[in-house]
Amino acid sequence: MAMTDTRPDLSCDVAIIGAGTAGLAAERAARKAGARTLLIDDGFKGTLCATTGCMPSKLLIAAAQAAADIARAGVMGIEAGPARIDGRRVMARVRAERDRFVAATKESYTALPGETCIDARARFLERTRLELDDGRTVGARSVVIATGSIPVVPKAFRDLGPRVLTSDTIFALDDLPDHLAVIGSGPLGAELAQAMARLGVRVALFDKGDRLVGIRCDKVHDAFGPLFAGDVTLHLGCSPEPSPLPDGIRLTWDGGQEDFSHVLVATGRRPALDDLNLSETGLDLNDKGVPRFDRSTMQCGDSCIFIAGDADADAPVLHEASLDGATAGTNAATWPDLSPIDRPPMFAIAFTDPPVATVGASPQDCAINAFRDYSRQGRAQVEARAGGMARLGADARGRLIGADLAVPGADHLGHLLVLAIMNGASAADLLNMPFYHPTLEEGLKPALREICRQASLAIRNDGNPPGA
Amino acid sequence: MAMTDTRPDLSCDVAIIGAGTAGLAAERAARKAGARTLLIDDGFKGTLCATTGCMPSKLLIAAAQAAADIARAGVMGIEAGPARIDGRRVMARVRAERDRFVAATKESYTALPGETCIDARARFLERTRLELDDGRTVGARSVVIATGSIPVVPKAFRDLGPRVLTSDTIFALDDLPDHLAVIGSGPLGAELAQAMARLGVRVALFDKGDRLVGIRCDKVHDAFGPLFAGDVTLHLGCSPEPSPLPDGIRLTWDGGQEDFSHVLVATGRRPALDDLNLSETGLDLNDKGVPRFDRSTMQCGDSCIFIAGDADADAPVLHEASLDGATAGTNAATWPDLSPIDRPPMFAIAFTDPPVATVGASPQDCAINAFRDYSRQGRAQVEARAGGMARLGADARGRLIGADLAVPGADHLGHLLVLAIMNGASAADLLNMPFYHPTLEEGLKPALREICRQASLAIRNDGNPPGA
Repeated sequence: MAMTDTRPDLSCDVAIIGAGTAGLAAERAARKAGARTLLIDDGFKGTLCATTGCMPSKLLIAAAQAAADIARAGVMGIEAGPARIDGRRVMARVRAERDRFVAATKESYTALPGETCIDARARFLERTRLELDDGRTVGARSVVIATGSIPVVPKAFRDLGPRVLTSDTIFALDDLPDHLAVIGSGPLGAELAQAMARLGVRVALFDKGDRLVGIRCDKVHDAFGPLFAGDVTLHLGCSPEPSPLPDGIRLTWDGGQEDFSHVLVATGRRPALDDLNLSETGLDLNDKGVPRFDRSTMQCGDSCIFIAGDADADAPVLHEASLDGATAGTNAATWPDLSPIDRPPMFAIAFTDPPVATVGASPQDCAINAFRDYSRQGRAQVEARAGGMARLGADARGRLIGADLAVPGADHLGHLLVLAIMNGASAADLLNMPFYHPTLEEGLKPALREICRQASLAIRNDGNPPGA
Repeated sequence: MAMTDTRPDLSCDVAIIGAGTAGLAAERAARKAGARTLLIDDGFKGTLCATTGCMPSKLLIAAAQAAADIARAGVMGIEAGPARIDGRRVMARVRAERDRFVAATKESYTALPGETCIDARARFLERTRLELDDGRTVGARSVVIATGSIPVVPKAFRDLGPRVLTSDTIFALDDLPDHLAVIGSGPLGAELAQAMARLGVRVALFDKGDRLVGIRCDKVHDAFGPLFAGDVTLHLGCSPEPSPLPDGIRLTWDGGQEDFSHVLVATGRRPALDDLNLSETGLDLNDKGVPRFDRSTMQCGDSCIFIAGDADADAPVLHEASLDGATAGTNAATWPDLSPIDRPPMFAIAFTDPPVATVGASPQDCAINAFRDYSRQGRAQVEARAGGMARLGADARGRLIGADLAVPGADHLGHLLVLAIMNGASAADLLNMPFYHPTLEEGLKPALREICRQASLAIRNDGNPPGA
């Protein structure tokens, strides 16, 4: 351990590696807790969320929804002829608006106190000492790993040139692709497959599994599938092999073959930990190569190293990354004193149409599961978008603990349910809130009543207005 | 009192006058509590909500939104040419879908146990005895008044023929009007004025006051006004006088005159109590002519008479009518034993675009008011519908007690806030829930943080993703 005797070039209380959503939150929290911080990032270009994640995908989805709305208007007596989709303008808006969000994240980076930001790559020399790729060393009382994640591209799809896309490259296209294969039916793959299809792209979606958007509940999945298949050709349980063509990619699978202009690989992301030299930390790694950590403190083992955001391969959604970061930053600053937090229930949304919201406990972990079919929900019918299914799950006493929603407005209903679950509300408690009429929210009431019935909870007012 | 010695033709425990939303809920609750019930209604044609209220207005609004969405799509690179609005098809869908909801309310009426429903008008002979217009008498241990409300038409607008419309008649139009004046800028007037305008009708909105949609908060009103004025010509502080034309109505006001094909009078509704012969009950009436009643039990004075729904002129929204009815019905059945309820916070939504949600305490009743400008809210920008303002109100300790929202998704945010308020949540408590990114919901976070700041509440994680 002679090395630690050398004075490092830079020293701080908390060194944060990575300036994404988690790293920025960690730096802010550590500084707020009184720590001298260093935020180390190599050529910061904005957070994943802003550059290639949440924001550009939602911009593409907004355009796709506009196209779908035009097609749907005829039902209401409003004809607008076929939508003329100008792919270049669609992509130009996606990038222009995206760049405004990126600029905002860059501002929050450059607005940090002077000399906080270090433009470099860092690797561990030991738990409290980092080496930068410019040769300098950093000494820290504690370290937060917030290096994010990178797309996983299966071997067969590598080195096939620019027609194989990932979320890192698809938003850089100048125009919409002509004929797109999407590999991977998780939230990202499903969102982009449907959006591209609604923008006039012929889209086929492949997945070796049989699930769309990772929906946990069979009944909800069964209701979502046909709605989704209205836009996208589905090949589930299918692992196609690619081969390059002069102007595209040929996919071949058991029983089929098709040529595509582009392939989007959306088979997941993995933590970007390879270059950190983690072996020098002596930390115990889990099966994903991630240091074992405590979700309530973000501490790795019993060390002075903390981890946050996509780098921990836990819940790759922004609000979790942000909470991870704040928790890691605070605890890194006060280490060895730690303040564990209660994590909120699991909450994820895929912005398909209908959206898919996943909240708290899965069906198999709920004593009671009750359902509402939104193909007969009043407000959804009014807006000509009836369809989908909601599952609400409760414990044996009728306390709400989970939900799977694939219904219009699931993004909004998900927020309501996660708050109810955090409050420990029973189905009867939630029925006592005013559900306005006519709304998508009130569509949950029949399922809440069913939970009350099964849990023998009294209901104050069991009336249903027309179309609730 | 010789009359009571005569045996009535019909007798029951609880007689409910009026089979609307409140009456149906009252009958159901009274029966569930063990009472023999009679539900008296003259030619039941479906609830107000289904026939001329919530449902047809939302159907018209859905068509209007579709037309507006088409116009907005160009921003996203999607051109659809001008929307061709087929007024006859628009109105035909409104009525066809409306009739399905009406059929559902009729079913819930006809599905009632045999001999519960009496097709007649009732008036009081005394507190426990009613006379029907077919000459029969009804004796009851207690009575629920649920006679609903009727549109108020100012004298000058009466007897001007079918070109003067109310919400009772506008949905019967075969085609959209050509040029519409709307009198009254409350929720109904504003909803229909904007919807008609978006469907290509030239619309002018008049109100003697200066408020749109009854918005309580000046800052929210100031943000909503210009958005609304983009669709509708506004004449606030203006009381026009009508005169008939061969093919329309001329409105004349201080400084102006204009000819309209139709006028929609939306100046409010009043309780339908005139024919009840209330004087025979000896009940004390308030300034609206409504028997004084207790909102927690719906009991009128200390009598065996209860009141529910629009007839009580309290909160003319469906969920309140339904809760009124259930409360009145239960207590009428158990009278003189009463079970008071806690009423939920005030909650009303107008489905304008953006929607207007009014929750709990008004700005002047809040120690702390904090605001969020949605013209810079990320998800709203993504969807090209940024605009509007949210007010969140708290007590001095930062506990949420009210809100005024005129922002995209205000209908959904309103549900979240009313639940938080019912839970007694502080702004810091609500910030601990997971707000998904990017959503309209997370736009509330800056206002919640401002409340925390003013109330000196600690915030766990004060980061903001780009575009929150």
